Amino acid sequence: MGGLKGTVAMKQVQVLRTDPHMGAITMPENLRVGLMINRQREACSRIGCDARFYNFAFGQSPFPVPPPMVRALTSGAVRGEYTDAAGIPELREAISNFYGRHFAISTGPERVVVGNGTKELMFMLFSMLDATVIIPSPSWVGYAPILRLLGKSYVSLALERERGYRIDPRDLAALLAKNPDRRHLLVLNNPNNPTGALYSQRELEEIAEVCRTYGCLVLADEIYALTTYAFEHFVSMGVMYPEGTFVTGGLSKDRSAAGYRLGTCILPADAPDELLDDLTKVAATIRTSVAAPVQHAAVTAYSPSVEIEEYMRNIRSIHSIMCRYLSRATAMIKGVGATQPEGGFYFLADFNALRDRLESAGIAGADDLSAAMLAHPHHIATVGGEAIMLPQENLSLRIACVDYDGAAALEHYRSDPPRSSLDEVAFVNDAAPRMVDGITAIRRFVEGVKKR
Amino acid sequence: MGGLKGTVAMKQVQVLRTDPHMGAITMPENLRVGLMINRQREACSRIGCDARFYNFAFGQSPFPVPPPMVRALTSGAVRGEYTDAAGIPELREAISNFYGRHFAISTGPERVVVGNGTKELMFMLFSMLDATVIIPSPSWVGYAPILRLLGKSYVSLALERERGYRIDPRDLAALLAKNPDRRHLLVLNNPNNPTGALYSQRELEEIAEVCRTYGCLVLADEIYALTTYAFEHFVSMGVMYPEGTFVTGGLSKDRSAAGYRLGTCILPADAPDELLDDLTKVAATIRTSVAAPVQHAAVTAYSPSVEIEEYMRNIRSIHSIMCRYLSRATAMIKGVGATQPEGGFYFLADFNALRDRLESAGIAGADDLSAAMLAHPHHIATVGGEAIMLPQENLSLRIACVDYDGAAALEHYRSDPPRSSLDEVAFVNDAAPRMVDGITAIRRFVEGVKKR
Repeated sequence: MGGLKGTVAMKQVQVLRTDPHMGAITMPENLRVGLMINRQREACSRIGCDARFYNFAFGQSPFPVPPPMVRALTSGAVRGEYTDAAGIPELREAISNFYGRHFAISTGPERVVVGNGTKELMFMLFSMLDATVIIPSPSWVGYAPILRLLGKSYVSLALERERGYRIDPRDLAALLAKNPDRRHLLVLNNPNNPTGALYSQRELEEIAEVCRTYGCLVLADEIYALTTYAFEHFVSMGVMYPEGTFVTGGLSKDRSAAGYRLGTCILPADAPDELLDDLTKVAATIRTSVAAPVQHAAVTAYSPSVEIEEYMRNIRSIHSIMCRYLSRATAMIKGVGATQPEGGFYFLADFNALRDRLESAGIAGADDLSAAMLAHPHHIATVGGEAIMLPQENLSLRIACVDYDGAAALEHYRSDPPRSSLDEVAFVNDAAPRMVDGITAIRRFVEGVKKR
Repeated sequence: MGGLKGTVAMKQVQVLRTDPHMGAITMPENLRVGLMINRQREACSRIGCDARFYNFAFGQSPFPVPPPMVRALTSGAVRGEYTDAAGIPELREAISNFYGRHFAISTGPERVVVGNGTKELMFMLFSMLDATVIIPSPSWVGYAPILRLLGKSYVSLALERERGYRIDPRDLAALLAKNPDRRHLLVLNNPNNPTGALYSQRELEEIAEVCRTYGCLVLADEIYALTTYAFEHFVSMGVMYPEGTFVTGGLSKDRSAAGYRLGTCILPADAPDELLDDLTKVAATIRTSVAAPVQHAAVTAYSPSVEIEEYMRNIRSIHSIMCRYLSRATAMIKGVGATQPEGGFYFLADFNALRDRLESAGIAGADDLSAAMLAHPHHIATVGGEAIMLPQENLSLRIACVDYDGAAALEHYRSDPPRSSLDEVAFVNDAAPRMVDGITAIRRFVEGVKKR
């Protein structure tokens, strides 16, 4: 019997964890930062400080779910049945039309797949495709952990601060030319998390041209597309490079339903039928189908609706006011730079000009900087470094601009929309006083550093 | 530029599909059978036949979702926020209490994880654990595709027809003794799909003893537990072998909410904290969280409720009446055997005694048999062979007993519950005439075979 004893079993569970790729999986950034904040909160409470934290760390739409979607989920609550793994037909049809209407992507329901958020769709695509994934740096924190979990290869494409961290087609071409026989899948997040950058049509054209030349596929993560402040300037990579682009999106940002976990993927125009078959097989294998009531609610979310359209326009304007204000306020702190966001909830604050001062304060890298700002008495939560796929030596931190009461802000905006820049400043101060104070806290932190 | 042309990109997508493990993934059985039925339907329509099919192939609760859960999902529809990857605290607490109340499993919320159905939880566990999975044969179709997708090793444990396809502890010990240094995870599905078999406390004790001896872990798939016809006879492996058992369950069977996609896993009692941490990391990496409104509905589903308790008792009785009747009716067909189900929606019909006759009719294996019964004029949909993890030479088919109007049957049962076996026969004939006709169709098919 191999000398094994009964009590050995659970020790073995502990050993079981050491499956090679588990060690590579890091704690998701939101959990890690959450733990850090809790630890700091405890440390603060020991010294009698009950300060609230300035939450620039977590990005989540602060607004309520649009009422038509809530009503639709209510109607869908009786749906207890399994559905098609790729999504119910009426939802795939509605999504197909939605992409035509908003993005001029000419598709059909047979190219649409729904998942438990775009993250799950990316997980499935990455698991299926025999390609090296190109992850720009900086980028959203979610791509790399999926690839590490899957044991799939990826390479980082360093972006230039001077170009606003947009992909330079020449750098992309150089990377692809190094290994022209290997298939690649470029992740293109537009508008961008963490910088808020928006790619112009011209830029997308140039990237598409490089991709065509090298047969590089694109995963266009356009989850923030409908939060683009000047939406008329948004161009989908699915239009510029339809034959090679997977376009992902969902309900979490522009319709504030992150908790619904409903993501979509438009497959490339020339994708063979087998691609959908394979994706469907993988989807059926790992989770059968997406929750049926949520899919029924999503039919409404993707169907023409004056109320939802108005909602999307309003929250887009509010994000624009909030994020641009905070970005400007940050850039006015001497020694600190900031990207000017054109969509989404984020911008990147740049402390690199303060490197010497920070180093003499014992702050050598982005995580040190983030930790120092989190510490008492600053209480400023941000993320940088690995959490935004930047090297530690880049002293940039992501600032999320969503720490306010979204329902009240939306109400305020609808009843009394700001009509001038002065109105906008008043709006921010009224609707998001914590964020305004948070920037002041950043200024004080920087002043303290400079005094050392 | 490597001589690549723009149009190459999509041809490459086609090639991309050939990632080694994609080829190993078979079409999920429900899709495959669905396609076969559609093809047969077309063939039938060409000869002017519009026969409806006797659907013994797909298992899904035919009953409506319990009203308290529908109301709870309605209240939860406003929940647009991300939640903890392992599940919201109040749900994990409710599940923990539920398992104490119904199964005498002494656990706490820190041992509970929720997923998008149990399938996703199994996917995550299989991906994490460095163990060879033991899949009994026959079994549910879902386990092996997950392992193939993950590229993880598994072995089949052939069960004896004469033992009602229950795991023989001696066979398990022999399998484990072959490779005592390798960690194993035994899948134990109780009550069983496809046989309807229920393990006795004594049997579970013996299996637990073998597992203790070899340090073998158990994945106790107890999704049908609360459909056990004589529920007082159900014993959870989580009670018999708490230190080494993962117990999975969910809302899809006893509460008829398959479409909600809410599964649960109770971790082993002695599992180290790192196990939950790792599971949480994997969950956060592949899908962030389970839909928040569904989790809020699930709090109600797992909390004490006279209405839901009564519902579960009623549908358990109806399943008992339906499945035992159909099993007996099948066993009365000369040359056909049938397992006597003690829980769930299924039994296994055994045509092995007709092997010679079937072979002379050109039916050599289980898939041939299934295809012959599906063909005109029989129109009988079933699954066998690979779909229930049995070798082709075993001429057994799974019969799902859920092809009836569940809402009407529940209404009938509540207003006028059968009080005798005669009443029960009348109840089946009244509430499920299609299934009764289906068994007649099987009898005719068998008579036809015997005449050859």
